[in-house]
Amino acid sequence: MLPATIEWEDGKLRLLDQRLLPRRTEYAVCESAEDTARAIENMTVRGAPAIGVAAAYGLVLALKNEDFAEAAERLAATRPTAVNLFWAIKRMRELWLENRNKDNGELYLIMENEALTIHNEDIEINKSIGRFGASILPDRGAAITHCNAGALATAGYGTALGVFRAAAEAGKRIRIYADETRPRLQGGLLTAYELQQDGFDVTVITDSMAAFLMSRVKIDAVVTGADRVAMNGDAANKIGTYGLAIAAKRHGVSFYIAAPLSTFDAECACGADIPIEERCGDEVRAIGGVCVIPEEIKVWNPAFDVTPNELITGIITERGIIRAPYAENIEKFFRGGNNRNEK
Amino acid sequence: MLPATIEWEDGKLRLLDQRLLPRRTEYAVCESAEDTARAIENMTVRGAPAIGVAAAYGLVLALKNEDFAEAAERLAATRPTAVNLFWAIKRMRELWLENRNKDNGELYLIMENEALTIHNEDIEINKSIGRFGASILPDRGAAITHCNAGALATAGYGTALGVFRAAAEAGKRIRIYADETRPRLQGGLLTAYELQQDGFDVTVITDSMAAFLMSRVKIDAVVTGADRVAMNGDAANKIGTYGLAIAAKRHGVSFYIAAPLSTFDAECACGADIPIEERCGDEVRAIGGVCVIPEEIKVWNPAFDVTPNELITGIITERGIIRAPYAENIEKFFRGGNNRNEK
Repeated sequence: MLPATIEWEDGKLRLLDQRLLPRRTEYAVCESAEDTARAIENMTVRGAPAIGVAAAYGLVLALKNEDFAEAAERLAATRPTAVNLFWAIKRMRELWLENRNKDNGELYLIMENEALTIHNEDIEINKSIGRFGASILPDRGAAITHCNAGALATAGYGTALGVFRAAAEAGKRIRIYADETRPRLQGGLLTAYELQQDGFDVTVITDSMAAFLMSRVKIDAVVTGADRVAMNGDAANKIGTYGLAIAAKRHGVSFYIAAPLSTFDAECACGADIPIEERCGDEVRAIGGVCVIPEEIKVWNPAFDVTPNELITGIITERGIIRAPYAENIEKFFRGGNNRNEK
Repeated sequence: MLPATIEWEDGKLRLLDQRLLPRRTEYAVCESAEDTARAIENMTVRGAPAIGVAAAYGLVLALKNEDFAEAAERLAATRPTAVNLFWAIKRMRELWLENRNKDNGELYLIMENEALTIHNEDIEINKSIGRFGASILPDRGAAITHCNAGALATAGYGTALGVFRAAAEAGKRIRIYADETRPRLQGGLLTAYELQQDGFDVTVITDSMAAFLMSRVKIDAVVTGADRVAMNGDAANKIGTYGLAIAAKRHGVSFYIAAPLSTFDAECACGADIPIEERCGDEVRAIGGVCVIPEEIKVWNPAFDVTPNELITGIITERGIIRAPYAENIEKFFRGGNNRNEK
C-alpha cells in the first residue's frame, strides 16, 4: 500500500521524503514553519496540492515560536509557480487575522482544525476530480501522463492519477505510459511506483518518446496535473507538458488537465502572467546523485512550462470538466453557475 | 582539441570510447570484425556515419582470421536502423567479391585502401554538408540540435554540428541549445563537450524543454542528423527528433536534417519501411551507471523515431539541400541531375 504523503501527528508535520522514493520510505519531521519551508524548497514534498497542504500545517507550526506574518512570507517564497501554495497560505492567514486576539490555545485549535480541513478537503476534491475525469476514458485503452500528479503530489488519491484510479474503480482497464519527466524523474520514480503499488499496467518512457508512442500505439488521452491555471485556461505544469500537448494535438489525442479549482489564479489573465520557476542547473547535470554532465557546461532549467488553452481538450475539476471557450466557462464556474456542466 | 573518433593504426582499429566521454578519453582497440561488431553494439562507437566507417575497417580486420561473409553478416546484425552501416558493408563486400581471388596481401591492400577512402570521404562529405548548411543560418542567432551528429558521430567534422562549424568558419555566431537526449545523453555528454571544445556558446536543456524554449527564445533553426532517410524524405533519427520537429512546426522554426547521401535508402519508400531498433530498458532505468528506476518497472525503449517529410524544411546533403516535393527531388538527386539545386 502506498504510504501517506502528509501526516499530522502529535502537533508535528510528517512528510514522506519523495526524494528517496521508490528505494526508501522515510519521513521527514517538520517542527516549525522554517522546517516546512525547507522541505518544500528541497522537494521533500512536491506537487501543487501537496505543498499547499504542507504550507497550511507549516502555519500551524509557526504558532509555537515563530512570527506568523514572517512565517507566511517565508513559506510563500519557497516556490513561485504552484498557486495552491499561495491559496492555502492566504486561507490560513485570513483565519489568523480574524482570530489572533483569541488566547493562544484557542487560536491554535482553530488553525490546526483549518489545516486538517484543507488536508481532508484535498482528498475529497481529488476523488471528485476522479469521478468526473473517469468519464473521458474508454473501458479499455491507454493513456499518457507526465510528472506525478498522484497521491504523492496531493494529500492522497491524486488529480491526474486520481482520474486513472476512479476509472479503475469503475471497472475500466487503462494502460498507463508514464513520462519519466526529466530532470527530477518524478514520472519514472514516483508515478511508476505509485501506479504499480495500486496494480496498474504502467510503462515508463523517456519524455522524448511520447510523440513517437502516439504515432505507433493508440493513445486515448493524455492527462496531467497543473501548478497554476490562468483565467483563460492556459495552464502551467511540469516542464515537458507543453511539448506533450503539441504532440497530442498533432495525433488527435485528447489532452486533459486535472486540477482542483484552487489551482486557478484570478490574478492571471493568461499564461504569460504565470511566473515560471528556474531551478539550479545541477538538477539537469546530475541524476541519482551522479553528476553526469560537467559543471562547466551551461544548463537552462525551467521547472514548468505553459500549455496554451487551445491545446487543452478540457480541465477536469472537482465541480466538472471545463471546456472551451475557457475564459467564458471558467468565469461561469467561479460565479457558481453551471457548476456541473458535464458529467 | 577534440580527439579523433576513429583511427586506423598499424592494421588495428582504434575507437574513441564514447561511453566514457567527457570524463575520460580512452581508445578501444579492435583487432577483428568481432571486436568491431561488439564496439558498435555496446556503443563504444555510435553515430550513423561513424559506425559505417568502423564497419568498413572491421571488414579489413576480418581478412586476417575470420570468414569474410560471416563477418559481414555479423557486422550487419549489430544495429538495425542506421543505413550507412549497410551501405559501407555492401561497398566493402562488393569490392571483396571482385578481388577475392587475388593473393591475400594484394586483397588486403585493396580492402584497406577502400576503408581509408570511405573514412576520408566521410570527412570531405561532412565539410560539404557544412558549406551548404551554413547558408540556412543567420549571422547571429540560435539553433537547437538533438543527440550528437558531430565529429564524434562521424569520421570527423560532423553533419548537423558540421553545419554549425561551417557557419562559425564563415563568421556567423550561432548559440546552440543541445537537447540532452535521453536515454543515453549523447547531447548532454557528447554534443556539449564537442561544441565547447570548439569554442561554441552551448547550453544543455532536457529534451522536454525544447518546445518551451521555442516559445520563449527566438530559435532560427533546428538541425539534426539522420540514421536513415526514405525516398519520400521521411527520416529516422534518434528518439525525440520527431517531437522536436512537431514543436518546431508549431513555432514556425525551420527544421533541417543534415545527412550524407549514403543515409538515403532506396529500399525504403517511406518512413514506415524503416526498422526501428528497440534497446534494453535498462538504458532508461539507469543513468551514469546508477539504476534509478527499479527493475520491476516496465520500460519501452525505442532508439529512434521517424519524422515525416512534411515536418522537414530541407535535407542538407553533400550535394545541396533537398526540399519538398521530396520524392521528386530525391529522385532527381540520385539520377544525378540537379545536383546542386541550391547553394
